Amino acid sequence: MTDTLKVTKISKSKIDQVDFSNLAFGTVFTDHMFVCEYKNGAWQTPEILPYGPLQMDPSAKVFHYGQAVFEGMKAYKDDNGDVFMFRPEENFNRINKSSERLAMPAFDKAYFFDGLNTLLNLDKDWIKPGESNSLYIRPFVIATENGVSASPATEYKFIIICAPAQAYYSGEVRVLFADHYSRSADGGVGFAKAAGNYAAQFYPTELAKEKGYNQVVWTDANTHEYLEEAGTMNVFFRVNDTLLTAPTNDRILDGITRKSLIELAKSQGINVEVRPVRVSEIVEAAENGSLKEMFGAGTAAVISPISGFTHKDKQFDLPKPEDAYSTKLKKQLTELQANRAEDPFGWRYEVPVLEV
Amino acid sequence: MTDTLKVTKISKSKIDQVDFSNLAFGTVFTDHMFVCEYKNGAWQTPEILPYGPLQMDPSAKVFHYGQAVFEGMKAYKDDNGDVFMFRPEENFNRINKSSERLAMPAFDKAYFFDGLNTLLNLDKDWIKPGESNSLYIRPFVIATENGVSASPATEYKFIIICAPAQAYYSGEVRVLFADHYSRSADGGVGFAKAAGNYAAQFYPTELAKEKGYNQVVWTDANTHEYLEEAGTMNVFFRVNDTLLTAPTNDRILDGITRKSLIELAKSQGINVEVRPVRVSEIVEAAENGSLKEMFGAGTAAVISPISGFTHKDKQFDLPKPEDAYSTKLKKQLTELQANRAEDPFGWRYEVPVLEV
Ligand SMILES: Cc1ncc(COP(=O)(O)O)c(C=O)c1O
Ligand SMILES: Cc1ncc(COP(=O)(O)O)c(C=O)c1O
Repeated sequence: MTDTLKVTKISKSKIDQVDFSNLAFGTVFTDHMFVCEYKNGAWQTPEILPYGPLQMDPSAKVFHYGQAVFEGMKAYKDDNGDVFMFRPEENFNRINKSSERLAMPAFDKAYFFDGLNTLLNLDKDWIKPGESNSLYIRPFVIATENGVSASPATEYKFIIICAPAQAYYSGEVRVLFADHYSRSADGGVGFAKAAGNYAAQFYPTELAKEKGYNQVVWTDANTHEYLEEAGTMNVFFRVNDTLLTAPTNDRILDGITRKSLIELAKSQGINVEVRPVRVSEIVEAAENGSLKEMFGAGTAAVISPISGFTHKDKQFDLPKPEDAYSTKLKKQLTELQANRAEDPFGWRYEVPVLEV
Repeated sequence: MTDTLKVTKISKSKIDQVDFSNLAFGTVFTDHMFVCEYKNGAWQTPEILPYGPLQMDPSAKVFHYGQAVFEGMKAYKDDNGDVFMFRPEENFNRINKSSERLAMPAFDKAYFFDGLNTLLNLDKDWIKPGESNSLYIRPFVIATENGVSASPATEYKFIIICAPAQAYYSGEVRVLFADHYSRSADGGVGFAKAAGNYAAQFYPTELAKEKGYNQVVWTDANTHEYLEEAGTMNVFFRVNDTLLTAPTNDRILDGITRKSLIELAKSQGINVEVRPVRVSEIVEAAENGSLKEMFGAGTAAVISPISGFTHKDKQFDLPKPEDAYSTKLKKQLTELQANRAEDPFGWRYEVPVLEV
């Protein structure tokens, strides 16, 4: 902990009021939060405070112009009580990339790791060991400057809040391939974890849900001929024994789960092709039986197998293969993340034990 | 005023502390604000309250997923002290259109007009008569539900705040035609006044400003061959004596100033063509001298004449015509708005005088 971090502890934990066997995702938060203010051109002394409301002027720019970016990470506890994160530097780098695209200031790396490590030490009782438990970590940055002129704010808050989470079982996931609405434009902000990207997906996703689909798989806005990603997951396709996934670009989020799975699969001798994936080839593969699997990849669910898809009113069901890549890769990745398996890649980050 | 509007007045106005001859746009707000909460599937009793901060949980969805839409309107006072708005129903309809696209609930028309009229009566001393004065009105809706799961919120606030404004003199406006970054995708949210659309423009606009331009004129994301609109203005081109402007679509905001100017110009016998405008034809017209004017149109500045543009490093200066359409149309529109001229179109809305 640097001497620049100011810590104010809660007087009494609210942990006893929480039923850890029955948690709705992202609705219960831990005792503390991390807050760092940006003003006068610099990040001020970061603080850890009791979790609680923010006072915001109604003219704060985040409400009007959407300057807001975020990250999603997880911490795991092993049976010894040690706490681990998965490639947290990637999240740190990505939030700064997102911020840059929205004309927001980059955050300080030492502040981020000191703050996060201290927060996880303070709230470590909220992280439960065991396969189905983790702590979901949500860093985010919002424009707090007052005033409704349409220009980048000069004041921000970088905040980290944490929510205990259980394994995310999504049931049968059926998806709709987008052929009218779209998620992002060339030259736009699709690659950033910008708040506005998510609100923009809600309406078309609700329309898809009304028709019985769980998610939309977005296609390129120009032609709707190439498959890009889902709302909060990148997407993989297994055709025969080859795994396909789209390359990232300025429309697609560079997912940490995605890039880890690519490496993990390759290290197992699975043939992985990172290249534009045509809707037509996936439809054809589904028709001729060579499409064996489809799955989403992201921090929340790690891997979400997809049981079927619809394209222009044509429905396709996927087989349930015995040796699914999705099952195998998910098990390997989650064991690695939670310190139940070796980590040949150096992806695991052990949270230091601090006097707090 | 309906009996469903709850009014809590300030005890002492802060108007004496305000220098009305020296107002930065959108930084000083009037004494009161309008707030209406949405929960349990319905808008609750609307309230007028002293202007002041909102208490927001750090997990409020607006901070994470950008569910936020807004409007921009103006009120004017004539020399008799009567107060007018310009086509306010258009703003009301548009905010609901924006909300729908972001999976947010439509607001109630009676609540909107009762609230707004009462607010303008309460804060009418903040509206100064005279050509250079107006009151900028900012209705907005934000998702206030707590929780970081990526789905539409079930709780919102509809808020109206007001800021006294002076005539907006922007000086020489030079613009850059976008050829890499873009503002919105086909099938996206560009037509909505969604908060996230504005943050997405800040970075490319800052890059343009560093090169000496004031604004970016966005082109279509697919080809960058068609001119669409500027950051907060629609755009008109005068080639010889014809006014050109792009048709609206799902990428372009359906501006109220734009559509009023089209009607106004037509009523004066000016030839107006609403059709896709190619970058190449505007470059050619600039080269052969037939491009006489270019201007932005929006509520804040009404009409902003553009003195030059750059496309792919080629700079073009525009002439300063004697009988500029921009000067003539701006004068006609502002006189009509402020009740200093006839209103053959029925656009003016007189704010009723209420006992408040
Ligand atoms: C749009 C989008 N794509 C993909 C992902 C997956 O990224 P990661 O694996 O880093 O969690 C996420 C979310 O986390 C996302 O929001
Ligand atoms: C993106 C955009 N285009 C155009 C306009 C002009 O619209 P209006 O004339 O209704 O103010 C605005 C703003 O007000 C805007 O935000």
